[in-house]
Amino acid sequence: MSKYRIIADAIADMPWQEAPKDASMQAPLWRYSGNPVIKRNSIKGVSRIFNSALVPWKDGYIGVFRGEQTDGMPMLYLGRSNDGLNWKFDDRPIQFKDEDGNLFMPEYAYDPRLTKIDGAYYIVWCQECYGPAIGLAKTEDFENFTRLENPFIPYNRNAVLFPRKVNDRYLMLSRPSDSSHTPFGDIFMSESPDMTYWGRHRHVMSRGSKWWESVKIGGGASPIETSEGWLMFYHGVSSTCSGFVYSIGGAILDIDEPSKVKYRCSTFLLTPEEWYEQTGFVPNVCFPCSTIADPATGRIAVYYGAADTYVAVAFTELDRIVDYIKEHSELHDSDTEPGRK
Amino acid sequence: MSKYRIIADAIADMPWQEAPKDASMQAPLWRYSGNPVIKRNSIKGVSRIFNSALVPWKDGYIGVFRGEQTDGMPMLYLGRSNDGLNWKFDDRPIQFKDEDGNLFMPEYAYDPRLTKIDGAYYIVWCQECYGPAIGLAKTEDFENFTRLENPFIPYNRNAVLFPRKVNDRYLMLSRPSDSSHTPFGDIFMSESPDMTYWGRHRHVMSRGSKWWESVKIGGGASPIETSEGWLMFYHGVSSTCSGFVYSIGGAILDIDEPSKVKYRCSTFLLTPEEWYEQTGFVPNVCFPCSTIADPATGRIAVYYGAADTYVAVAFTELDRIVDYIKEHSELHDSDTEPGRK
Amino acid sequence: MSKYRIIADAIADMPWQEAPKDASMQAPLWRYSGNPVIKRNSIKGVSRIFNSALVPWKDGYIGVFRGEQTDGMPMLYLGRSNDGLNWKFDDRPIQFKDEDGNLFMPEYAYDPRLTKIDGAYYIVWCQECYGPAIGLAKTEDFENFTRLENPFIPYNRNAVLFPRKVNDRYLMLSRPSDSSHTPFGDIFMSESPDMTYWGRHRHVMSRGSKWWESVKIGGGASPIETSEGWLMFYHGVSSTCSGFVYSIGGAILDIDEPSKVKYRCSTFLLTPEEWYEQTGFVPNVCFPCSTIADPATGRIAVYYGAADTYVAVAFTELDRIVDYIKEHSELHDSDTEPGRK
Amino acid sequence: MSKYRIIADAIADMPWQEAPKDASMQAPLWRYSGNPVIKRNSIKGVSRIFNSALVPWKDGYIGVFRGEQTDGMPMLYLGRSNDGLNWKFDDRPIQFKDEDGNLFMPEYAYDPRLTKIDGAYYIVWCQECYGPAIGLAKTEDFENFTRLENPFIPYNRNAVLFPRKVNDRYLMLSRPSDSSHTPFGDIFMSESPDMTYWGRHRHVMSRGSKWWESVKIGGGASPIETSEGWLMFYHGVSSTCSGFVYSIGGAILDIDEPSKVKYRCSTFLLTPEEWYEQTGFVPNVCFPCSTIADPATGRIAVYYGAADTYVAVAFTELDRIVDYIKEHSELHDSDTEPGRK
Amino acid sequence: MSKYRIIADAIADMPWQEAPKDASMQAPLWRYSGNPVIKRNSIKGVSRIFNSALVPWKDGYIGVFRGEQTDGMPMLYLGRSNDGLNWKFDDRPIQFKDEDGNLFMPEYAYDPRLTKIDGAYYIVWCQECYGPAIGLAKTEDFENFTRLENPFIPYNRNAVLFPRKVNDRYLMLSRPSDSSHTPFGDIFMSESPDMTYWGRHRHVMSRGSKWWESVKIGGGASPIETSEGWLMFYHGVSSTCSGFVYSIGGAILDIDEPSKVKYRCSTFLLTPEEWYEQTGFVPNVCFPCSTIADPATGRIAVYYGAADTYVAVAFTELDRIVDYIKEHSELHDSDTEPGRK
Amino acid sequence: MSKYRIIADAIADMPWQEAPKDASMQAPLWRYSGNPVIKRNSIKGVSRIFNSALVPWKDGYIGVFRGEQTDGMPMLYLGRSNDGLNWKFDDRPIQFKDEDGNLFMPEYAYDPRLTKIDGAYYIVWCQECYGPAIGLAKTEDFENFTRLENPFIPYNRNAVLFPRKVNDRYLMLSRPSDSSHTPFGDIFMSESPDMTYWGRHRHVMSRGSKWWESVKIGGGASPIETSEGWLMFYHGVSSTCSGFVYSIGGAILDIDEPSKVKYRCSTFLLTPEEWYEQTGFVPNVCFPCSTIADPATGRIAVYYGAADTYVAVAFTELDRIVDYIKEHSELHDSDTEPGRK
Repeated sequence: MSKYRIIADAIADMPWQEAPKDASMQAPLWRYSGNPVIKRNSIKGVSRIFNSALVPWKDGYIGVFRGEQTDGMPMLYLGRSNDGLNWKFDDRPIQFKDEDGNLFMPEYAYDPRLTKIDGAYYIVWCQECYGPAIGLAKTEDFENFTRLENPFIPYNRNAVLFPRKVNDRYLMLSRPSDSSHTPFGDIFMSESPDMTYWGRHRHVMSRGSKWWESVKIGGGASPIETSEGWLMFYHGVSSTCSGFVYSIGGAILDIDEPSKVKYRCSTFLLTPEEWYEQTGFVPNVCFPCSTIADPATGRIAVYYGAADTYVAVAFTELDRIVDYIKEHSELHDSDTEPGRK
Repeated sequence: MSKYRIIADAIADMPWQEAPKDASMQAPLWRYSGNPVIKRNSIKGVSRIFNSALVPWKDGYIGVFRGEQTDGMPMLYLGRSNDGLNWKFDDRPIQFKDEDGNLFMPEYAYDPRLTKIDGAYYIVWCQECYGPAIGLAKTEDFENFTRLENPFIPYNRNAVLFPRKVNDRYLMLSRPSDSSHTPFGDIFMSESPDMTYWGRHRHVMSRGSKWWESVKIGGGASPIETSEGWLMFYHGVSSTCSGFVYSIGGAILDIDEPSKVKYRCSTFLLTPEEWYEQTGFVPNVCFPCSTIADPATGRIAVYYGAADTYVAVAFTELDRIVDYIKEHSELHDSDTEPGRK
Repeated sequence: MSKYRIIADAIADMPWQEAPKDASMQAPLWRYSGNPVIKRNSIKGVSRIFNSALVPWKDGYIGVFRGEQTDGMPMLYLGRSNDGLNWKFDDRPIQFKDEDGNLFMPEYAYDPRLTKIDGAYYIVWCQECYGPAIGLAKTEDFENFTRLENPFIPYNRNAVLFPRKVNDRYLMLSRPSDSSHTPFGDIFMSESPDMTYWGRHRHVMSRGSKWWESVKIGGGASPIETSEGWLMFYHGVSSTCSGFVYSIGGAILDIDEPSKVKYRCSTFLLTPEEWYEQTGFVPNVCFPCSTIADPATGRIAVYYGAADTYVAVAFTELDRIVDYIKEHSELHDSDTEPGRK
Repeated sequence: MSKYRIIADAIADMPWQEAPKDASMQAPLWRYSGNPVIKRNSIKGVSRIFNSALVPWKDGYIGVFRGEQTDGMPMLYLGRSNDGLNWKFDDRPIQFKDEDGNLFMPEYAYDPRLTKIDGAYYIVWCQECYGPAIGLAKTEDFENFTRLENPFIPYNRNAVLFPRKVNDRYLMLSRPSDSSHTPFGDIFMSESPDMTYWGRHRHVMSRGSKWWESVKIGGGASPIETSEGWLMFYHGVSSTCSGFVYSIGGAILDIDEPSKVKYRCSTFLLTPEEWYEQTGFVPNVCFPCSTIADPATGRIAVYYGAADTYVAVAFTELDRIVDYIKEHSELHDSDTEPGRK
Repeated sequence: MSKYRIIADAIADMPWQEAPKDASMQAPLWRYSGNPVIKRNSIKGVSRIFNSALVPWKDGYIGVFRGEQTDGMPMLYLGRSNDGLNWKFDDRPIQFKDEDGNLFMPEYAYDPRLTKIDGAYYIVWCQECYGPAIGLAKTEDFENFTRLENPFIPYNRNAVLFPRKVNDRYLMLSRPSDSSHTPFGDIFMSESPDMTYWGRHRHVMSRGSKWWESVKIGGGASPIETSEGWLMFYHGVSSTCSGFVYSIGGAILDIDEPSKVKYRCSTFLLTPEEWYEQTGFVPNVCFPCSTIADPATGRIAVYYGAADTYVAVAFTELDRIVDYIKEHSELHDSDTEPGRK
Repeated sequence: MSKYRIIADAIADMPWQEAPKDASMQAPLWRYSGNPVIKRNSIKGVSRIFNSALVPWKDGYIGVFRGEQTDGMPMLYLGRSNDGLNWKFDDRPIQFKDEDGNLFMPEYAYDPRLTKIDGAYYIVWCQECYGPAIGLAKTEDFENFTRLENPFIPYNRNAVLFPRKVNDRYLMLSRPSDSSHTPFGDIFMSESPDMTYWGRHRHVMSRGSKWWESVKIGGGASPIETSEGWLMFYHGVSSTCSGFVYSIGGAILDIDEPSKVKYRCSTFLLTPEEWYEQTGFVPNVCFPCSTIADPATGRIAVYYGAADTYVAVAFTELDRIVDYIKEHSELHDSDTEPGRK
């Protein structure tokens, strides 16, 4: 009998593997033993796939993948899987169109998230728009992809939609940035009545005083609605003399006022330890972008990019992860301020 | 008989001084001989007033002024003048309230612009909001000031409202920034149906290839509606081994699609030359924030901050300035692109 | 009848000028109308004298001066004056010897402070020691100067001695630095039983949240003992896109536990406004290094370097300055913490 | 019959492994085949243990370990071992008290060294004190740990005590730093009569002209007293386009005047080559912190942190290492200068 | 029957391995399965050999190798091989002499290229000359090495000679740099009538807009003369938050006007994927310096430094690589401009 | 009767003013009392003229001037003067042609020097060539200007020709740079047999250990041939927290081997002190570019740019300046090394 509930559509058959019997596991988030689930050179002309997102679709799963082409430019590719672990990809990038049906491609696009809201699927990503900015598109069939207006002025990255309207407004997390390897970053939330105009921006969480997330934080997977609030997996970044280290963190936001942080885990949930996380195009990166969460069992699969080179999966269970976050929760002043100044 | 027309309310008695008989004047924008019109220490507890904006009000003028307090923090102060040149200031900063009437003060506020739209007066400024961000307030009587929602996520500066709706949308220019002395910056434009939610962001102008504006550009005064388009005075920044130099530039935007640049002057219109522009808290700054434009005579007064220390005024006439801008116009690719990506 | 008392030796005839009748003066510290009192090229082979310190000596004053030689290297020069305003300088730098009487010259030396303790005179300065470090010397006759051990490991600047032992320990303020134009800096205090070994280091004050002192702060003149505590004039630094601005601030430290700040003025007391402060080798610098304080009248003269080019003087009176500091006092958490971690 | 002698307490049964028969070994320092001896996640709530120090204690060894907690903050943990290779750790950080017996914990603490002097054990480490600074504590029983005064003002790192007084003074090496990933660093030495007040600071060694140590150097293990002088293992840092590389170097200091370098090895003794040195939280780090040296056999075990993730051990013999250092010795001017300026 | 021809001396027995049957290979350049062919510590006193060049010589091959000594300093070493895969090295660096026969050694030397022109062998490398600069030497017997004048003022790196005169002038590619880890770089070409005086400098190729080469590019191996033009393997650099990533690219230059780029491959040909490319002194480096090209078979072996630690080999065939470059060619404006300004 | 001789063409009537009777003058170089001789806005469309060079021509003088256009871009303008003090300028930039007579204009051009060699006049300047690089042109009539090949690869600035061949080779000084406000810089010398191909590069002088020239140095005016050697006025740069300070220095080079420094003045000869040197587009700049030297009288006029805004003149006499340089000469190791590595 579980303590907490996931509020979401039922999942027929999600990827799963039990926790290892390993006393050394620090937090209740464990890696899939078959990691990485997506390896190098899985598409002709694409050298690395990582930082990607998926949803249940028909009898299996469909996803939007960051494909780093052999010219070094990232584009978004569609992938399909029966089991969420073995993937087949389209040969060419997703073809976006504008509202008039004309092809309207970004020069590059990366770090997509994918969220189902009211029966439609929304993709948000980062792209060139006189600097890095958030792109937004909608599809209902994964065949036609219509770009909506970019929600924000650059420079912005790591936008994440909530899976439903709250107080009759769409909600989007994002992380204002600069034009390069941004050395700072907090999570903000914005509202929209119509997915075109955005406002009532609120500060949600500051980068932390703890070193694992002291440089910057950014939204990861779309928040999971639970009986305790919105369960959010995000990334936190530490700085070393050899570059950044990206770990996975967790927080729980208030259901009705999600800019209010209820619990924020002071420790990371997962940090680079395995070869596919420690070596690759960018060493030492665990970057969560998507989850599958099963209301029936409380099982959660977290998909994360590894070393800007691979896609990996980790598992947890709702009760365990929520209890862990609560037990290790430390709130910052800037987390509990109204977020408006 | 003038070639071009200003489309604005009539001005009874605006500050004015004829152009000097000086062959060395490069562009048709000449300084007021009584500059600076506002000097140091004009308010108890405020050491410098600069980068400020004004509007005609009753029989004279009223303005919102950046007052750098003796603790180094900028706040907004109200000032009144009969002639636009001699000013009296309130003792304490403008008291902003939220929509519920509660005092709602920014921690600091600077570089205000002031624009009359449909009979109400809107102040935009830059303020602390987990980084520099745009603040927005409305007044109808200059006694009660109600803050509206911040239009954008940080980091942003130099927001400027258009003096009327275009295509039934409010328009705001702004310059996305970073958290410090930003070394880059272009002008963007955003639309809003209601002054709360903003979207349909468009890139207007890039910093220029010419060195006087090669580091960054930012909106200055609210655009003046003319028969040729929106006449915009803005600032352009050059970088030297001793810091930045701010000059005044000019452009004309399409009346109905203002993200489209019709003419962009390749030269500055005014650059620091006088003692009050060359020495002060930040040497070598001419920073335009406001204009008075008289439809009857075509006279225009440009108010600009000087050296982050003083307020100064320069004058021009519509026909002369428009012709100069046209003759020296050079458009960049990024100026004439649709501004959407 | 004064409210507060200065606890120090009587001064026969100190430099003085009454406050101007100028409503625009923000704080009760006013400039000498004959500023700068030391101009360029006052010594053959020395182009600029600034950031210097003096004490009453015999019938007049004697001082240790930062002399920037025509090769750009700073060295310490002795100067003498009858009135504290007109100065004569030695031709060559002060000749320091080690404890064995051998010549022991620093490669360069700058920003000296000069303090009389128990009848002897101590000079502290910044010098090359595998990076910038504090130098220390003692004289009793201003003819023989014996260097003591450097009190601290580099990198350190702006060391200032207290004019008497407290709790039987010598006290020295200093500001740990880096090896260049340090972009951070707090004031620390160290104790010594013997002027050779130093310890029990305490944090005194952090750079401030107010912008005039948000980059760094550093000790200025030797603290003046008063009935309210140690009155300390220090410098605070602001950062602009064209470099640093140095202003003069004030604080009052606890008499018996000087690492405890009793009052800290949230505003500057003097900021660059005059030509000799705004232009020179480093524009916009007011850098206090020394005071003369007369117990009989409460008069205080503050000597400060201007623009790294001149020596200037400002005046105040004890009651006025103490009251002003108290009225504008804002303490920071890090000011009132024990200072030990 | 050995050429040189170690002057230290006898060691009963130290960890040991003979040198491999590998012609490719460049210097006589060889890795333990069972490396790393401490792996990830060895303590609940601590993800990595590295950069740690130990001493013989009772029938085995005891040590003070840098434990990087799962919130990214480093703290000091006690560990015990029978053989110096297999370790058991306390669950919670060492509880430090002040002189009055009150709990007095640093906010974070890292890179401890552990030195026995006159029967007591001293721990030095780096910790938060308004910037990174040296912490110091004493224990006699490894149950009660009393913090002494911090010896130096920040910013400082890599402090190392000598195992006995020299000329009746305690000696401590340290490396003045800045507040971040310091890009410079030399080794200094300070004296103290009482472990409270420190002075007579001397420059010992500059970072080298050879690239393996051209960025910075820092004291490693407590110097080993030998018949040739103080044998010091230290770290030297090289800079690449992907960050720093830390190698192990060696030098021999004069017994009576240890600020005088007798021999300094121009080559590294060990540089990252193994997987546990090349990959981890900070790739390419070999960071020596402690040795065990057996006078009877001349055997020396060097404990070093690997990749800021592991603890590893390397072995050498006194005669071989001293001869190697002598043969490859190159002294710099700044090594042989008096060290006082 | 091959489509294209290599114009070069016949090669008796070059190293070769057929392409793997691996669908994931993106470009027709495949790694030797025995990589790395040169491992760590192959010479006493030299810890790493990489970024090196070779030519056929007598019955086998001879090469000039970057040997990173155990003091971290790079020097050039001679190596010999029968098969181009197994190498024997001289113990000490190549002894260069000046024109008068006096020993004339660089302080350090790295990244050599080796080119046969008109029967003589020329070595170019980067060395200290008041900053990094190009060194140049000539040998006819690999026993006597005479240094010629340095062709360029510093700061310059990655110089590469063409294997014959063009229009009666020697040609050298180079990449002007700064004094550190240069964050920019284009390829230029210079002419010389006599290998002493150089001029008629032309810009050949700019760093690319594609991210794999967006930071800088530099000449790699001496261009191979083919029926399609000069086939050039070069390196392109991408920037991540953990440093640079070096990949191998390809272009074809006009035979008679080699500053004119005919084809430029928009994708990399090889990017770090293997352990010896991903981990080492500098992770993620593939740095081509030399080729062997057989006119009879069209076989090409590309030698590249891996991770600044190893030497590795990749293979291709002329027809396949030329066709691939043509199919993926994208020329930049600055590639096709005259190269003179 | 003068001690030393100038070896140059006779000058009919050069600008002159006797030294002031001012004890404060540090070095024998005194400013013209009518400075600045060229003020702002002297040409329509050009806001500032500075850093310029002139030669005697017919009955007066002709010069090549850096004209900073009102778009911020520098171009070269011709100016004529009867007396060397009052100047008339052409309206448009100098029109350069290539060897075929086609117009061949640089995108921008600045800091010209002008040197007569064997009856022809050569202009060298800095210009855009995929980064800042040296441009070179020749004229015989100041009506036709033919560009020669750029002598060096970028990035380079401050090239200066010697007024005659030495050892049958043209000689050019230059200062290798980076692509921005270069924070380093030494003077090198190159030889050419034909003004097309350049080589035998030698290091002449390093930036100095004295602070007035510790950041960088660069060639100023064409060296004056004297009986003591080549008298060279150059610029030296100091760094402050508000930017760079440019002073004028002097050195004497060996007549036959000018890469050999005979005397180098350890002090500056002139440093910014006047309003036109301290304020302007770049405060605190004295930048020498040209001299007039009269063999008959030994009089020398030094033309220098002031504050990147004005042209100013200073005077000296050969005997006085040579003696001063000799008396204050300090040679650095890198000055007297052969300059070849």
